[in-house]
Amino acid sequence: MAADEGGTAGPAGRVTIAEIARQAGVSVPTVSRVVNGRSDVSPRTRALVEELLRRHDYRRRPAAGPGAALLDLVFNDLDSPWAVEIIRGVEEVAHAAGVGTVVSAIHGRSGDAREWMRNLRARASDGVILVTSDLDPLLHEELRVLGVPLVVVDPAGSPTLDAPTIGAANWSGGMAATRHLLSLGHRRIAMIAGPPRLLCSRARFDGYRAALEGAGLTVDDELVVPGDFRPESGFTGCSALLDLPRPPTAVFAASDQMALGAIEALRQRGLRVPQDMSLVGFDDLPEVRWSAPPLTTVRQPLAEMGKLAVRTVLGLARAERPDAPRVELGTELVVRASTAPCDPRESGPQVPSGRYGAL
Amino acid sequence: MAADEGGTAGPAGRVTIAEIARQAGVSVPTVSRVVNGRSDVSPRTRALVEELLRRHDYRRRPAAGPGAALLDLVFNDLDSPWAVEIIRGVEEVAHAAGVGTVVSAIHGRSGDAREWMRNLRARASDGVILVTSDLDPLLHEELRVLGVPLVVVDPAGSPTLDAPTIGAANWSGGMAATRHLLSLGHRRIAMIAGPPRLLCSRARFDGYRAALEGAGLTVDDELVVPGDFRPESGFTGCSALLDLPRPPTAVFAASDQMALGAIEALRQRGLRVPQDMSLVGFDDLPEVRWSAPPLTTVRQPLAEMGKLAVRTVLGLARAERPDAPRVELGTELVVRASTAPCDPRESGPQVPSGRYGAL
Repeated sequence: MAADEGGTAGPAGRVTIAEIARQAGVSVPTVSRVVNGRSDVSPRTRALVEELLRRHDYRRRPAAGPGAALLDLVFNDLDSPWAVEIIRGVEEVAHAAGVGTVVSAIHGRSGDAREWMRNLRARASDGVILVTSDLDPLLHEELRVLGVPLVVVDPAGSPTLDAPTIGAANWSGGMAATRHLLSLGHRRIAMIAGPPRLLCSRARFDGYRAALEGAGLTVDDELVVPGDFRPESGFTGCSALLDLPRPPTAVFAASDQMALGAIEALRQRGLRVPQDMSLVGFDDLPEVRWSAPPLTTVRQPLAEMGKLAVRTVLGLARAERPDAPRVELGTELVVRASTAPCDPRESGPQVPSGRYGAL
Repeated sequence: MAADEGGTAGPAGRVTIAEIARQAGVSVPTVSRVVNGRSDVSPRTRALVEELLRRHDYRRRPAAGPGAALLDLVFNDLDSPWAVEIIRGVEEVAHAAGVGTVVSAIHGRSGDAREWMRNLRARASDGVILVTSDLDPLLHEELRVLGVPLVVVDPAGSPTLDAPTIGAANWSGGMAATRHLLSLGHRRIAMIAGPPRLLCSRARFDGYRAALEGAGLTVDDELVVPGDFRPESGFTGCSALLDLPRPPTAVFAASDQMALGAIEALRQRGLRVPQDMSLVGFDDLPEVRWSAPPLTTVRQPLAEMGKLAVRTVLGLARAERPDAPRVELGTELVVRASTAPCDPRESGPQVPSGRYGAL
């Protein structure tokens, strides 16, 4: 039918991107940008190209039977604790669509990344979901030339790629965690922060600060310690806070794993959670339902992020534009047993109350 | 070259299974059984068929470029805590071999399983690694007819399929856990066992019993409580043990998740691990390095089991026979902070010592 309308048909009787570009009077890379949902195309050009794609019933590749479709789900490393949550969400939606999910890790080594790109090309993947924004720019360029739809699931919140991105509402999450501790009467609330180079760390910290300032408090620099999201850094950070002349009564850890490290630091000193210290994490990994005590935390909807990524990448493969170039799914406070009201003798008289203003 | 030796060549100039069967004077299913490493072939027939396969340089399917190969890694469900460990091992070896890993879950629903089988056929998978032995017999028969090499990774230890199986040394693990507790002076050692229908549960329990009997003790039925490997059942089981008139001084939980539930049950009663109760788990999930306290446990080499599964399934695809139809990889005791010497006042005088024999 594409040929009926005057297009030059591709090998399977379908129109090529080159022909769409010719009819639209634009370059092939421009059509490719529209197909892949990128933002750097003018609305007029986009509308024209999308209309032509629809009219020609454009599809990326010759249909190879409904079951043969594949998408690639790519991690930097598979040892991230939330990897399996994302795999679960992606697989569920892909499976329902009859699409196979090829899971791989590029291990941060550029040799592996080249190898991966070669394999991707050979198996004619219908789309790529990348769980990191830390992709080698050369590979990104190759993906662009290959014309494979790309969506980035980005729990770290540092979009550097020109592709639709799905993240979580980190700032709101930091705010919710801190407001929960404030509502329990805590005033000396510490934070074990994430790596400063990641935007998600910054957003969680800003949410923490906004909540404190909303309660008439300011950030006390000595109560903010650095971490790298891993348990060891939570252990070290919490130990440093406990060594202060006047330790906090509550800690917001910017990842669940750091919260687990903090619990262990407290346990080793014979301190109890939440009686001696309240603690909030961030992520809601499956295992923190059974930490001792079960952790109050901010839930990142990782499986849902994976599901939305599949829908977005399959949409791109049908030349549909995503709703927005960047989507943030809401985070949610989950209250369990690691937080308790502040003992008024501990913190009440020592810091300014919300009512009478900041330091 | 296959054709030079008188074989009828397949579409890509290669010999077919039917031709091998004709030359060997056996049926097509028999050749298929040899190709797939199944045990129900006589050694003489196997040797003859393997020789013919080698002579004809038999390969499962026309070469489609080194990067196009795929293998399917199939779970019942992706919410199993050890899924990601197995995925990590499989992906690492498959990636190095230029093979893509398609991860899927059949969700225990037969409709999904049929759908999965359709997709498998459409994408011409080179092999299947199944992480469960609980496969619908009809699907198993379809896989057999399809001639796709199949390997079962079977942490549950209940091989019911006629395919090479990779498990862990459950009995030795149960023995090592219990001997560790005995070496710390514990005599009233309880066990939170796994589901009795799974062979791995039985093997871990038998290892526990063998260690007790080796120390001149017998199993006290009231100290063995049932569980289902999930944390909730560890919580309930440990609570029941604590309600006994004379509770144990140590508990061996047949899974890490049950051990986490047990820690929480102890914490809720104000009891400390290991001061008030020693605890050993089974699995060595990544998160138990940071439980409070870090858990002493028996390591199942899940990533290594995944790696061996890939090597085995790729070997089957080259018509190599696996080393053995069932391989068990060794388990290993990992001592962390949840076990401590038994307080002699607690248990010494109350039970017979190893030296003076069993009850």
